[in-house]
Amino acid sequence: MGEFELIRRYFASAACAAGQPGVVLGIGDDCALLQLAADEQLAISTDTLVAGVHFPQPCSAELLGQRALAVAASDLAGMGASPLGFTLALTLPQADAPWLQGFADGLQQMAAACGLSLIGGDTTRGPLSLTVTVFGRLPAGQALTRGAAQEGDLLCVGGELGAACAALELLLHGREAPAAQRDALLQAFWSPMPQLSLGEYLRGRASAALDISDGLLADCGHIAQASGVALQIEQAAVPLSAAAEALLGHTAAQLCALSGGDDYRLAFTLPAEHWPALSVAFPTVRRIGRVVAGTGVQLLDEQGCPLPLPVSGYQHFGAVHG
Amino acid sequence: MGEFELIRRYFASAACAAGQPGVVLGIGDDCALLQLAADEQLAISTDTLVAGVHFPQPCSAELLGQRALAVAASDLAGMGASPLGFTLALTLPQADAPWLQGFADGLQQMAAACGLSLIGGDTTRGPLSLTVTVFGRLPAGQALTRGAAQEGDLLCVGGELGAACAALELLLHGREAPAAQRDALLQAFWSPMPQLSLGEYLRGRASAALDISDGLLADCGHIAQASGVALQIEQAAVPLSAAAEALLGHTAAQLCALSGGDDYRLAFTLPAEHWPALSVAFPTVRRIGRVVAGTGVQLLDEQGCPLPLPVSGYQHFGAVHG
Repeated sequence: MGEFELIRRYFASAACAAGQPGVVLGIGDDCALLQLAADEQLAISTDTLVAGVHFPQPCSAELLGQRALAVAASDLAGMGASPLGFTLALTLPQADAPWLQGFADGLQQMAAACGLSLIGGDTTRGPLSLTVTVFGRLPAGQALTRGAAQEGDLLCVGGELGAACAALELLLHGREAPAAQRDALLQAFWSPMPQLSLGEYLRGRASAALDISDGLLADCGHIAQASGVALQIEQAAVPLSAAAEALLGHTAAQLCALSGGDDYRLAFTLPAEHWPALSVAFPTVRRIGRVVAGTGVQLLDEQGCPLPLPVSGYQHFGAVHG
Repeated sequence: MGEFELIRRYFASAACAAGQPGVVLGIGDDCALLQLAADEQLAISTDTLVAGVHFPQPCSAELLGQRALAVAASDLAGMGASPLGFTLALTLPQADAPWLQGFADGLQQMAAACGLSLIGGDTTRGPLSLTVTVFGRLPAGQALTRGAAQEGDLLCVGGELGAACAALELLLHGREAPAAQRDALLQAFWSPMPQLSLGEYLRGRASAALDISDGLLADCGHIAQASGVALQIEQAAVPLSAAAEALLGHTAAQLCALSGGDDYRLAFTLPAEHWPALSVAFPTVRRIGRVVAGTGVQLLDEQGCPLPLPVSGYQHFGAVHG
């Protein structure tokens, strides 16, 4: 069986949704074709997951399919874009039918949950890795960038943090946990639901936004730098994953929430007048601080006094050699 | 140095062209943003290159940068799309400064030659591989698909074939060649120039088109299948790379031209009335056959009698296990 047939067989269901408006041509030609309405812009983001670096190996192919798409789609949420489609570049050591079926199932589940159609891709032989490129649409000029946070805005997050980081204790260090905790943490790691509805709601409301992939402190640092402001975070206001707290205790769960990555909640700055309606529409959202003059991120205790910053989020390539 | 700084430092020059019309926002936020004119469509294609599968390793980082982008951009040519931008997902075993500089230089050279701007990407640690996703624009409805070849149309190719396949003799089997031959063959492999101008010219003229990546016979088979027709190829009319013929002799060079992949010339079907003007505008284009009723690809000798088909083009994943 050639690579073309392989793609068609296993990914047909994720491609099927290609009756989606905007998708003119899906899999099967040199290119896919998208068409937007007048005055719409296309948002594009690319994420690669490498076995042993971004996920443990061996792992469930179905969960990997879910996670690969969720991680990429979360960037659409961070931009306020409405989901449209995605391409998948899949590199595999061998073509294994049960693995492909499981992966395609997981991919399709997340694609359906997010409203994304598979529009193209590439399959190659090699060490296991995946690159997903996602496409979303936006009214022109309404993208939620990182660069427009204003002094006086509230700083908010989309929900509890720290679960994905805590899950690494189970995945990498073999730690045991009761079933309910374990399920909650593993789901947060493998199937983070991109906050696409929240992102769409924030268009025209939030002044800056992103999805938390590197850790709350590191990602707030990106907003602070791009906007030329400082972000103050009240440590006690940061919502912690209950399962992370139960597994690790308060202090370690707090560290996961502040510095652990992979939560894929939105962090955003918001003019205060939008808070009342937002807090009703999206009850998991929490105010965790505010935008002030200055640079960087400040962590405050309950008296408003500065706390030392813990080690920042995960980054690839700690040093450049040569 | 973090991955963000790494991207900025080495790929700034390829990103610089982001003043390009259509690119609203480039590298640095959750997503890049593109905007098309009314009645334009966006063409998208993704290609992955894996070390040891798609290119020999070790190899020149600069040449790899050229090839990675050229291979992807060629799909835009095959669709008749005008170049716009690309994303790069780069997975590297380590961040090596001279390697990154060479790669970025090669990428930038091909980006400038093709008129493509780097608009986003991802860098990760892992076994060397690259996924490039390219974006082009098209007037709505004018994409050159594979599915509309008509009986009576001419079958054409964009230029000489077989050089990239012959280059593998030098790269993989250590064969020696005089400098001029060697340079021509290696350039065909490492720096195939996507036929973007030809693709744009063919909009509204060609009935079907694609870029030859799997080999002439295999790719013509794709047109035949998608269009529900047969393609007849006159073997003697297929233009052979002079350097391939000098290195390998006529018979082996012909096999390279028919079944070798990686040439990235366009193959297309054309109503005969367009031939005179086309042959003047693009003198490297050759008529190699025609579209007839039936299915599949037929190879003909100089008397018009059928020849046996050699082994078809390269495909990943010869079998699915399990």
